[in-house]
Amino acid sequence: MDTDTITKPHERLADLLTSEMDAVNTLIRTRMASEHAPRIPEVTAHLVEAGGKRLRPMLTLATARLFGYSGDHHIRLAATVEFIHTATLLHDDVVDESAQRRGRPTANLLWDNKSSVLVGDYLFSRSFQLMVETGSLRVLDILANASATIAEGEVLQMTAATDLGTDEAVYLQVVRGKTAALFSAATEVGGVIAGASEDQVKALFEYGDALGIAFQIADDLLDYQGDSKTTGKNVGDDFRERKLTLPVIKAVAQATPDEYAFWERTISRGRQDEGDLDHALGLMEKYGTLDATRSDAFNWAEKAKAALQVLPDHEIRTLLRDLADYVVARLN
Amino acid sequence: MDTDTITKPHERLADLLTSEMDAVNTLIRTRMASEHAPRIPEVTAHLVEAGGKRLRPMLTLATARLFGYSGDHHIRLAATVEFIHTATLLHDDVVDESAQRRGRPTANLLWDNKSSVLVGDYLFSRSFQLMVETGSLRVLDILANASATIAEGEVLQMTAATDLGTDEAVYLQVVRGKTAALFSAATEVGGVIAGASEDQVKALFEYGDALGIAFQIADDLLDYQGDSKTTGKNVGDDFRERKLTLPVIKAVAQATPDEYAFWERTISRGRQDEGDLDHALGLMEKYGTLDATRSDAFNWAEKAKAALQVLPDHEIRTLLRDLADYVVARLN
Repeated sequence: MDTDTITKPHERLADLLTSEMDAVNTLIRTRMASEHAPRIPEVTAHLVEAGGKRLRPMLTLATARLFGYSGDHHIRLAATVEFIHTATLLHDDVVDESAQRRGRPTANLLWDNKSSVLVGDYLFSRSFQLMVETGSLRVLDILANASATIAEGEVLQMTAATDLGTDEAVYLQVVRGKTAALFSAATEVGGVIAGASEDQVKALFEYGDALGIAFQIADDLLDYQGDSKTTGKNVGDDFRERKLTLPVIKAVAQATPDEYAFWERTISRGRQDEGDLDHALGLMEKYGTLDATRSDAFNWAEKAKAALQVLPDHEIRTLLRDLADYVVARLN
Repeated sequence: MDTDTITKPHERLADLLTSEMDAVNTLIRTRMASEHAPRIPEVTAHLVEAGGKRLRPMLTLATARLFGYSGDHHIRLAATVEFIHTATLLHDDVVDESAQRRGRPTANLLWDNKSSVLVGDYLFSRSFQLMVETGSLRVLDILANASATIAEGEVLQMTAATDLGTDEAVYLQVVRGKTAALFSAATEVGGVIAGASEDQVKALFEYGDALGIAFQIADDLLDYQGDSKTTGKNVGDDFRERKLTLPVIKAVAQATPDEYAFWERTISRGRQDEGDLDHALGLMEKYGTLDATRSDAFNWAEKAKAALQVLPDHEIRTLLRDLADYVVARLN
């Protein structure tokens, strides 16, 4: 791959889908309005208008276009996906007691936890209305299942994060709930509404699933070896917040009794002293878990690209392939 | 009406629907299970198995039977309605910072707010899967709209509760969100799944809506004039928690400047002293707002009964009529 093809393919997607994304944004603004409860659009606007790459709704628009869709249900579905995403961010920030999101104070900080919980519920119910309007039971089934995977993954993350018994299988499930389930639902419903065949819908699911997993593994790896200037996060935030992610899970799996005691103290019990992050990084180095995690991310990106093979040869397909490269190119 | 017909009609409904309610309870237990996140069934069981009258799922079973339904989708819909109800209770207790529910410590107290938020989300997504299984877009539409009314009502309640500008129209909307929207969805979907005509479905909506409103107004009135032995609540809890309900809204509407200043201090600003509840009760007495609220509750119960007229003559219809009498009979 040359540098150009992996330069911000989501921006090239955004260019290609400008008028449809405009329609999605208009629909989002219309549907987040509430005649009676002004708190709702205030909170939603704070988050929705903070930007974000709108990757998920773009995936829905892109896959619908890949199959030559000419109706307008993909606009509704793209807005649906963005509403679900926004609702989960609102609830996540309450659960994680976060103070910042996308470089701005979180809604739970600006208003309160109550507003974040209830406005999240409202957006979820609005997304539900939007998808019902498409009249497609298949789409509803996909989104209902994705919602359950997301919610179960969140609960699992809450209980598994500091539990050293968490293995790679549990991690993968948390990652599916946290990121991949909505990516794969986004790509699937675009194809379904456009009348893609069963094989193609399956491929769209596999692409979205693998893309989401590659994306999240890359994020978790960058937490330990990223440049804080480009990631906007400090190295070791996950360690300090006692979040078990793949680089640590791989190190725990190979730990000597002394090393296990170290992870037990710092992650399970959360008793961290100066120098512990360096020691943790040393253990990851010792077992090569950062490199192994990096390989995993690249493997998932390859899986995503492989899934695209059964899809029609189309400009969009090329962009989706480049997007899979791009989410892991950050690791080079 | 004689005393017998208004004696606990929900218990007579429960008798009549025993085997179907058993099936609903089995389905609830199956669907609240999570292979991976044991926290989910723990939290759900705490609430679901604490009892409660299961009024909402019974309404769905009852209206399906009223139209001679012989399939099993009404079981799924009854479980759906109970899951939505349970999810809203979990989120409500977080928002209200409640410590007790149904005579037991709340989930947010026993576990934490995070668990209540995320398990609530999980139950909502499970309810969504259950309703999709019925394959009825009409049912999905009704439940999506009810969810939006519920969520909007909750946000409205949060922002309107201590605002003296809250009038009876806003109160009614909060009550619809809090109680009536799920009652009316419960009665409607039972009829829809059983193939009731449009007129009959409309009547089922009107019955559920009016029943829910009567029920909530009665609850709000009992807060000021109930016997704490039978209601299990202390007189004036809503006043102390600065919740504007109908008896106070009616008194505020007629207040002299001095009285308005009293409501302003005690409700809007929450500065309450000893004797304030008695003074508040005195003002409600002065303007007869407790009696007026009582009349409103009875009027809604009459509306509920009137809606039943177009429904088939059936044992269930008699029980639904008695139920409307029962929710306000507590006020005698």
